[in-house]
Amino acid sequence: MELHGKNIIGGSESAEGRPVIAAVNPASGETLAPDFYEAAPSEIDRAMTLAAHAFSQRRKSDWERTSALLDRIADEIMALGDSLISRAAAETGLPEGRLSGERLRTVGQLRMFAGVVREGSWVEARIDPALPDRKPAPRPDLRRMLIPIGPVVVFGASNFPLAFSVAGGDAASAFAAGNPVVVKAHPAHPGVSEMVARAIRAAVSATGLPDGTFSMLHGGPDVSLALVRHPLAEAVGFTGSLNAGRALFNAAAARDRPIPVFAEMGSVNPVFILPGALKARGEAIAKGLADSVTLGVGQFCTNPGVVVGIDNSVLQEVIRMAAEQLQKVPAGVMLHQRICDAFAAGVDRLRTIEGVTIETTENAGPGARAALFSTPSANFLSDPSLSQELFGPSSLVVVCDSPAAMMAVARGLEGQLTATIHATPEDLEQFAPLIEILTARVGRLILNGFPTGVEVSPAMNHGGPYPASTDIRSTSVGTAAISRFARPICYQGFPDAMLPPELQDANPRGIWRLVDGEWTKASVAENRA
Amino acid sequence: MELHGKNIIGGSESAEGRPVIAAVNPASGETLAPDFYEAAPSEIDRAMTLAAHAFSQRRKSDWERTSALLDRIADEIMALGDSLISRAAAETGLPEGRLSGERLRTVGQLRMFAGVVREGSWVEARIDPALPDRKPAPRPDLRRMLIPIGPVVVFGASNFPLAFSVAGGDAASAFAAGNPVVVKAHPAHPGVSEMVARAIRAAVSATGLPDGTFSMLHGGPDVSLALVRHPLAEAVGFTGSLNAGRALFNAAAARDRPIPVFAEMGSVNPVFILPGALKARGEAIAKGLADSVTLGVGQFCTNPGVVVGIDNSVLQEVIRMAAEQLQKVPAGVMLHQRICDAFAAGVDRLRTIEGVTIETTENAGPGARAALFSTPSANFLSDPSLSQELFGPSSLVVVCDSPAAMMAVARGLEGQLTATIHATPEDLEQFAPLIEILTARVGRLILNGFPTGVEVSPAMNHGGPYPASTDIRSTSVGTAAISRFARPICYQGFPDAMLPPELQDANPRGIWRLVDGEWTKASVAENRA
Repeated sequence: MELHGKNIIGGSESAEGRPVIAAVNPASGETLAPDFYEAAPSEIDRAMTLAAHAFSQRRKSDWERTSALLDRIADEIMALGDSLISRAAAETGLPEGRLSGERLRTVGQLRMFAGVVREGSWVEARIDPALPDRKPAPRPDLRRMLIPIGPVVVFGASNFPLAFSVAGGDAASAFAAGNPVVVKAHPAHPGVSEMVARAIRAAVSATGLPDGTFSMLHGGPDVSLALVRHPLAEAVGFTGSLNAGRALFNAAAARDRPIPVFAEMGSVNPVFILPGALKARGEAIAKGLADSVTLGVGQFCTNPGVVVGIDNSVLQEVIRMAAEQLQKVPAGVMLHQRICDAFAAGVDRLRTIEGVTIETTENAGPGARAALFSTPSANFLSDPSLSQELFGPSSLVVVCDSPAAMMAVARGLEGQLTATIHATPEDLEQFAPLIEILTARVGRLILNGFPTGVEVSPAMNHGGPYPASTDIRSTSVGTAAISRFARPICYQGFPDAMLPPELQDANPRGIWRLVDGEWTKASVAENRA
Repeated sequence: MELHGKNIIGGSESAEGRPVIAAVNPASGETLAPDFYEAAPSEIDRAMTLAAHAFSQRRKSDWERTSALLDRIADEIMALGDSLISRAAAETGLPEGRLSGERLRTVGQLRMFAGVVREGSWVEARIDPALPDRKPAPRPDLRRMLIPIGPVVVFGASNFPLAFSVAGGDAASAFAAGNPVVVKAHPAHPGVSEMVARAIRAAVSATGLPDGTFSMLHGGPDVSLALVRHPLAEAVGFTGSLNAGRALFNAAAARDRPIPVFAEMGSVNPVFILPGALKARGEAIAKGLADSVTLGVGQFCTNPGVVVGIDNSVLQEVIRMAAEQLQKVPAGVMLHQRICDAFAAGVDRLRTIEGVTIETTENAGPGARAALFSTPSANFLSDPSLSQELFGPSSLVVVCDSPAAMMAVARGLEGQLTATIHATPEDLEQFAPLIEILTARVGRLILNGFPTGVEVSPAMNHGGPYPASTDIRSTSVGTAAISRFARPICYQGFPDAMLPPELQDANPRGIWRLVDGEWTKASVAENRA
């Protein structure tokens, strides 16, 4: 596939702006052809107008085409073959093996949502049949379900060029709910973005959905803000930094007509190692920690950036072992030179902070080398900069002198995607309040595991209290992500034939519905019998 | 019950601010004793701190006390007896019969949420059991459920001094989800607010929940904003005007740590009368419309403020009949002199707009007299002020010269709580696109009924696209309202005994759960067998 560098607006290619974006191979520093055209205001408006038009053409039976679209996108992505992987590797510095795995995750996610749409129960149908004889007043027939919200603007993340980008979880769940999607491509991997966008385009054509169902634009912050501010945008999905996510949130809240922003902005994912677990399996924890910290050169939202333990000789030994493990990991190529520079600057800054000790030995040379730091909990609690995310392969061990100090560290945490506890059954009894404290601060609580590795499944929750995400009530991973891009409507007093199939008496789609307050797949008549 | 006029902060009464709020009987103009103390900043902080403390003491088994609390609040409200109704009537001008009915709705709503909590399935439990043998990587055990969000700030509405106020739907659903609640009393009915707050206090004590579970403060906009901006607030429930709701939304979005605001801000609830229905039952529609417009002196969020029809002699006759019906309705006392003045000013303004015809005859005298206006659709489309809500017993008939003009009116609507269609089966065939257009603009679509009368049930949706509400994905009425004040958490790799009962293998609470992607009440073992 020859890349053209143009914006993809509905069924057309468009290049009205300047060709100012180019990918750089972070391993070689080489600029990759072609240049990509920043979207002009006219193009932004055209993409959104087409999306709104596509949405207005949507029909009740479109769930069939929607599930076909998701499956077809998966097929088209696989059909891109090795060229997708090699371009992704060139643009991101990620190893081909990891990218092949990420491609599997991406198509798996698309097919999972195709299944969710085909099965159909995600619309949370609720039926309160009429009670014409009720006193003092009859009850009308009320039927409620989720329907799509409208054009969704999606921002891909740099660290998952496939699974959290153009056809990633946000786009997949927005499509699944029945919405058109306008993606702003991440400028760090514009070529992968074009390839995937063309795969989506092919899938939209093949399934006969309107052209405006999908567009993809290139650009920087100005394009991002223009998309969020566009009057026809109805919701935003974002994965990335706190600064960028908050800027989009602010823009959306300041609109004449505010729209929801589902921004997942990472966190430090603290790992608490309780004394019994430390003693029983310190070495395994040290090794697991080092693996989790360096996975993908530490470029994960769920990277464990803070480790909390109670000081004793075992903890010191575990720190030493983890540092030793980390030093064995070769320096890695980060996604982008700016990210690598920011990581190096962060490591340098930590080195200069009084009371912070570097546990790994210093290493010159190119690439990002894993680093482990430690600091007493009093330092950690008094310096808020120490609990900020440093994106990359590093972690800070917070050394507590007592269980009470550990609880204080937990209480001082801001919102997190995850927290992890390593514990024996005895630890858990002794530290029961720790679980309550952490529950209030996280979206996912992990026992005796590591936070990296986010399963795509019905029970996953990938989100958390701010600043982990802007909407604590939602997840960006797993089947529940679909409900971000849907909203309820209630039909009152409608004849059966006029209702969407999901709400008709006979339950022609065979979905789970809450009828008279009970979940059932039965028809309304069977349920009342 | 002797009213003390103080703020109720946890278990204490407090009066650190100035006694500057007094209720006025809108029927007589008489100021009612006592004066009520505006909450001082110290009191706001104490209420929020106590709420956060109560929340931190919450335990997994507290659902039992929560359902007992809700039932007990209902009992305590009933135990207030006639004195509640007579104070409410004095403060609001609403008839005692209406207030008795509203009390039934209020206690019914509290008991409904008690039932929802006792039944337990509202937590949307999802269980993905571990797959230790899965290739290439095992799946960990993942279990997700909704948990309470934290201290909720609730603002009551003036038009429902019981059902949308201190113990109204927002407070009931926030309690039901397991949250502490801090209510800002509506200054138009501070005495009713105190009576209900004392009932809630008694219920909190009786059920052994922490004092901070409930507080109520008096005050104006400064107190409201201070509550929303308080660092310990986690969510906001509001029913009232667009201006006030938007101000709270803006304050919440501008916080360092934004929090969700669920503001329901009313709408004009357009009623479309299609030609066949107009012809078949114009007189009944005219009568139903007049009843709906004047219900509660037009002081409902779902009041039909706009009626849309296609011009012919039948429509003109229906306008005439509706006007005649409306003129028979005696002038009503509105909730507050300011509301009455605003209604009078709005009616006067409409009278002066060129192209707007008043269909009711003018009537002097005190109180709010129902008014019906009409205007050609071209006027309506060109003057946005005509589609703004005028709170009170009036409606504007938009006269279209063609079906296309009616579609244009529908397309021009902003977000609405409801829209209503009066139609014969033939109308519905001819106007099928109208349903699609309205679906995109409303939270509830009513066929051959009227928008007033909001059922409290599982399938109800009371919310809609902005400016009807700030959160299109939520309802403020019905059992689904509970999920506004809850958020998901996922437990990964936890032993059964450490999990909340809702997520334990055996399903000890017998709730509906999504296990391996299927809804079931079975245990995990039974489900896998």
